[in-house]
Amino acid sequence: MFIRFVTTGGTIDKIYFDALSRFEVGDSPVNTILGEGLVKFDYDVVSMFRKDSLELTDEDREELRRFIATDDAAHYVITHGTDTMVESAQALRSFPDKRIVLTGSLSPARFKTTDAVFNIAMAVAAVQLVEPGVYLAMSGQIFTADNVRKNREENRFEVIS
Amino acid sequence: MFIRFVTTGGTIDKIYFDALSRFEVGDSPVNTILGEGLVKFDYDVVSMFRKDSLELTDEDREELRRFIATDDAAHYVITHGTDTMVESAQALRSFPDKRIVLTGSLSPARFKTTDAVFNIAMAVAAVQLVEPGVYLAMSGQIFTADNVRKNREENRFEVIS
Amino acid sequence: MFIRFVTTGGTIDKIYFDALSRFEVGDSPVNTILGEGLVKFDYDVVSMFRKDSLELTDEDREELRRFIATDDAAHYVITHGTDTMVESAQALRSFPDKRIVLTGSLSPARFKTTDAVFNIAMAVAAVQLVEPGVYLAMSGQIFTADNVRKNREENRFEVIS
Amino acid sequence: MFIRFVTTGGTIDKIYFDALSRFEVGDSPVNTILGEGLVKFDYDVVSMFRKDSLELTDEDREELRRFIATDDAAHYVITHGTDTMVESAQALRSFPDKRIVLTGSLSPARFKTTDAVFNIAMAVAAVQLVEPGVYLAMSGQIFTADNVRKNREENRFEVIS
Repeated sequence: MFIRFVTTGGTIDKIYFDALSRFEVGDSPVNTILGEGLVKFDYDVVSMFRKDSLELTDEDREELRRFIATDDAAHYVITHGTDTMVESAQALRSFPDKRIVLTGSLSPARFKTTDAVFNIAMAVAAVQLVEPGVYLAMSGQIFTADNVRKNREENRFEVIS
Repeated sequence: MFIRFVTTGGTIDKIYFDALSRFEVGDSPVNTILGEGLVKFDYDVVSMFRKDSLELTDEDREELRRFIATDDAAHYVITHGTDTMVESAQALRSFPDKRIVLTGSLSPARFKTTDAVFNIAMAVAAVQLVEPGVYLAMSGQIFTADNVRKNREENRFEVIS
Repeated sequence: MFIRFVTTGGTIDKIYFDALSRFEVGDSPVNTILGEGLVKFDYDVVSMFRKDSLELTDEDREELRRFIATDDAAHYVITHGTDTMVESAQALRSFPDKRIVLTGSLSPARFKTTDAVFNIAMAVAAVQLVEPGVYLAMSGQIFTADNVRKNREENRFEVIS
Repeated sequence: MFIRFVTTGGTIDKIYFDALSRFEVGDSPVNTILGEGLVKFDYDVVSMFRKDSLELTDEDREELRRFIATDDAAHYVITHGTDTMVESAQALRSFPDKRIVLTGSLSPARFKTTDAVFNIAMAVAAVQLVEPGVYLAMSGQIFTADNVRKNREENRFEVIS
């Protein structure tokens, strides 16, 4: 099995610069997380954007869609900011033969306590098991792209009731 | 969804006692890991054994099998030592309506660097997606109980070729 | 021995809020760090400010000075943002019988990799060993308040040459 | 300033081998801890023994004493198992011009929660501040070699009353 990881920024990638008291999108922690997970499958990591997900534009989403459309992999895990993860997932719903799982985290991967490892690992398991389509792995659950929303007040993802 | 976690000991649960320079099986880290993962499903944790998996007997496996047979849950994640995880998985292959995923870790969950979080999270995702049956989540992959072995030399799980 | 910890904010206390993609000053990590350090002396923690140190005013420094002047402890560790730690240290130079050590960190204590634990621990050791006066514990070293500066370009504290 | 770190084994260096369910003395974590602490002084790390401190012999202590006697550094931090740290400290009491601080930890440095970072950092601060002599940095305190014991029941170091 081969999984292509595509990183787009978001909280999961956030780092902190003391000199400026600023918090910015940095290198992806995906390689570190897969290393700790002692995974034994083939993969690579493509860095596509470094943006808060509220700053991702329709053009960015179209660029991401085209990248996957013309790329030769069959299994994708996309790390993404949580605020527009659902929008990006829905913009990707058009590949009959590809399994795509989006994930991210509510606290930065570089924090001592973070949901980043858990979410990446869920996405890795899910992309091996699902039918072709687009999914989200967040809040301890696997959602289909057309039946999920972020509940901001409660800081969780949930099925649209 | 409801997941019942059953803990049986193994490396994932190991703790260290300085006064004795001894390393023993302690409380399960499952609750801590699910808390960090910000999971939003219902679950409980049942502590069944606290043993290295090489010390688990046929009677222990039969007790585990009977517990699940008479229990009312449909989704199980079982944490287990890695040395006999495959044997225990195979001893459990008899429930037409239950999804069971065994997992554990190669380094203790209490270590700074550990595969425990990754493996628990894979098991959580897998148990939601698989058909009824018994599975292993290790080495970044999901295996069926009858087609996996631990390769001790390389410290990994792999498909029986 | 009794040590009074006084927290004033700064990078060491920074936390992150996903819903707003914002990084703010939060609760002090001092209690957690002392707990991990298995310390066996008496102490308490007083939260005085929650500010980036660039936002601390002369009035704030005067309030801190008055608090210590009228307080009955003899040993203080003050956590502080790094940008104006030296200014605050110099504003405190007037207590013949008190030992005061300021410290902080260049990355937040809540990060996986942080200098916060190291710096707090140096301050704890130093406050037990120094003559009365005001000191800084940063960059692996103990400085006197009147002979230290932050070198922003190299993100370190150093003796004024 | 230059500090020479000498490692002798003990809990602080413990690592875990899954294949054997065994816990052994491994590489010293001193370099990693100093890196996280963002220290800016010169140092090196000499690995002398890799033993539980109960296994250290009088010959080992004499070898350590001779090493320091003929070595050219003035500041030493020695990491050591806790069970015989006091004995080793007392065996070293004979250098008029050297500052020596022994430290270690009650849980392995590789654990998520450990006193190792705190203790190393206290030792680093202490060795810069003390008069020539031999000291221990444990339990949040700095002790002189001739007035300290390990209280095993309470798992702490304390002054001999």
